[in-house]
Amino acid sequence: MKATLILAAALLAAPALAQQAEAPAAPSPGEIVSAAPLSEWMAIAPEDLLVMDLAPDARGKARRVVIQLMPPPFSQPWVANIRTLAKAQWWDGLAIVRSQDNYVVQWGDPDGEDAAKAKALPKGMQPTSESDYVAPWAVAALAPPPAGVTFDARALPDPFARQAGVHKGWAIADNALEAWPVHCYGSVGVGRGMSPDAGTGAELYSVIGHAPRHLDRNIAVVGRVIEGIEHLSTLPRGTGPLGFYETPEERTGIAAIRLGSDVEGLPAYQYLSTESDTFARYAEARANRRDPFFIVLAGGADVCNIPVPMRQVPASEG
Amino acid sequence: MKATLILAAALLAAPALAQQAEAPAAPSPGEIVSAAPLSEWMAIAPEDLLVMDLAPDARGKARRVVIQLMPPPFSQPWVANIRTLAKAQWWDGLAIVRSQDNYVVQWGDPDGEDAAKAKALPKGMQPTSESDYVAPWAVAALAPPPAGVTFDARALPDPFARQAGVHKGWAIADNALEAWPVHCYGSVGVGRGMSPDAGTGAELYSVIGHAPRHLDRNIAVVGRVIEGIEHLSTLPRGTGPLGFYETPEERTGIAAIRLGSDVEGLPAYQYLSTESDTFARYAEARANRRDPFFIVLAGGADVCNIPVPMRQVPASEG
Repeated sequence: MKATLILAAALLAAPALAQQAEAPAAPSPGEIVSAAPLSEWMAIAPEDLLVMDLAPDARGKARRVVIQLMPPPFSQPWVANIRTLAKAQWWDGLAIVRSQDNYVVQWGDPDGEDAAKAKALPKGMQPTSESDYVAPWAVAALAPPPAGVTFDARALPDPFARQAGVHKGWAIADNALEAWPVHCYGSVGVGRGMSPDAGTGAELYSVIGHAPRHLDRNIAVVGRVIEGIEHLSTLPRGTGPLGFYETPEERTGIAAIRLGSDVEGLPAYQYLSTESDTFARYAEARANRRDPFFIVLAGGADVCNIPVPMRQVPASEG
Repeated sequence: MKATLILAAALLAAPALAQQAEAPAAPSPGEIVSAAPLSEWMAIAPEDLLVMDLAPDARGKARRVVIQLMPPPFSQPWVANIRTLAKAQWWDGLAIVRSQDNYVVQWGDPDGEDAAKAKALPKGMQPTSESDYVAPWAVAALAPPPAGVTFDARALPDPFARQAGVHKGWAIADNALEAWPVHCYGSVGVGRGMSPDAGTGAELYSVIGHAPRHLDRNIAVVGRVIEGIEHLSTLPRGTGPLGFYETPEERTGIAAIRLGSDVEGLPAYQYLSTESDTFARYAEARANRRDPFFIVLAGGADVCNIPVPMRQVPASEG
């Protein structure tokens, strides 16, 4: 209840309401997630995390962005390259080069366009191909959702694909033969040139606006920001075409990008199993908000409106 | 072509590509809009604009946000109140009170919760009712789209409604009997307490993330930001619950909010008629990106992925 009441109270003063006796209210999506048993929280291996430390902000405050890398079967050539680049400390000293409102923040080598000045890539980079924007995928027969849940986030109507759903921890769309990870708020993808260039993974972006689903199958999605996206989404927008910064001074420096397994003292992160009963109830509650603030149930949601819950493992459970 | 080539070049160096002879490329959505005849650009009356001047930024730079108010039949009691509040200069000296990542930035009276300290509303405020979140709406028979256009942005499948579409200049969803303006990136809505409180219009928010469509029919949508949203979307996120700022120092002050008709020297603004041939082609190109960067056509789009093009009237046409 707490979050809902704060919302109500803070949106507009309504002090009398808090004193009314009310029937027990339906829980909010957040309250449902808070009650998940420990067994439903899935560990994210530190080697599946990419940790980006930006230069401190104007007040000297640290800015860390934590990204979860895409698991197989998706985008693995780029993910392998991202691991190689992080191990080589390749991004250290490079910069955020672009911030376009309601679209993406992008980082990499500011001199990447200039063959004479571009930073050399490390050894061991794999070739990439646009054929890997998708993966073979036969959607397995789905177990029915738990009793009382009528909304199934694993099989949603979708204007950009045959269907979309949240499966195995990720938002995925498919056309019955192939599937692909979709661009939602916070998704991380791979910048590229014109086809057939598929990008190496050295130039990355994060979505900071409404899901740009038209990029699906046109660019590799390699992960998602699970913490610290505000350090990207609040960056000043670039004033050049497509939100590129026009001067070096406008860019934000990258102090270091490392795999989570190479970062000392990194907290443990978990995501809520998308195959769990709690996730099914959470998704149903996102699509049909019965908590007290709401009046009309939407009766549905799009795949990007059901973000997979994430958390740092509380110290009490560590 | 320019924007696409810049995108490609800047994403990753591919200098050879620019020298290849290419077949004439399909235009991008932006290029289609640029070629619209003047007759398809619709004037926005200055009295239908709300101009918010924030306190200058840390470097002393002005921050202006221009909002287009919702036309009839939607949300008119709140829009009337917003005009009354602007005429009374009621917001001047108040503040941005909340910035929640991937959700909303909200402004109004920081003391609104405290009945003893809350700023009195001006005379002439109208009562509001949640019954006005929707309006009676019989979707008229639609003229067929122009030749060669197979995608119709006026009638889209939608997970949150019977259908959604871009009609008469706005993104609207309906259930065949009633219709309502939807929450997209940049939409402006009215904060409220618990039902049946429907908010007065004194507390407003703008969407700065993925469309929170679950708010549709639960809150009044009263307009949309047409210029300057970056001054809201880049504000530091609040660290309190729901992104509220925890101290007055964190808030951004509002210097003034006025109707456009009371702002000297305001440029003229226009939107592209959503009933125009150019809009139909633009929407089709959003759903099926044939410009050179893209490989796979999505074959569809959601209603918030087809923003209505806006512009300042160029001086040469003024």
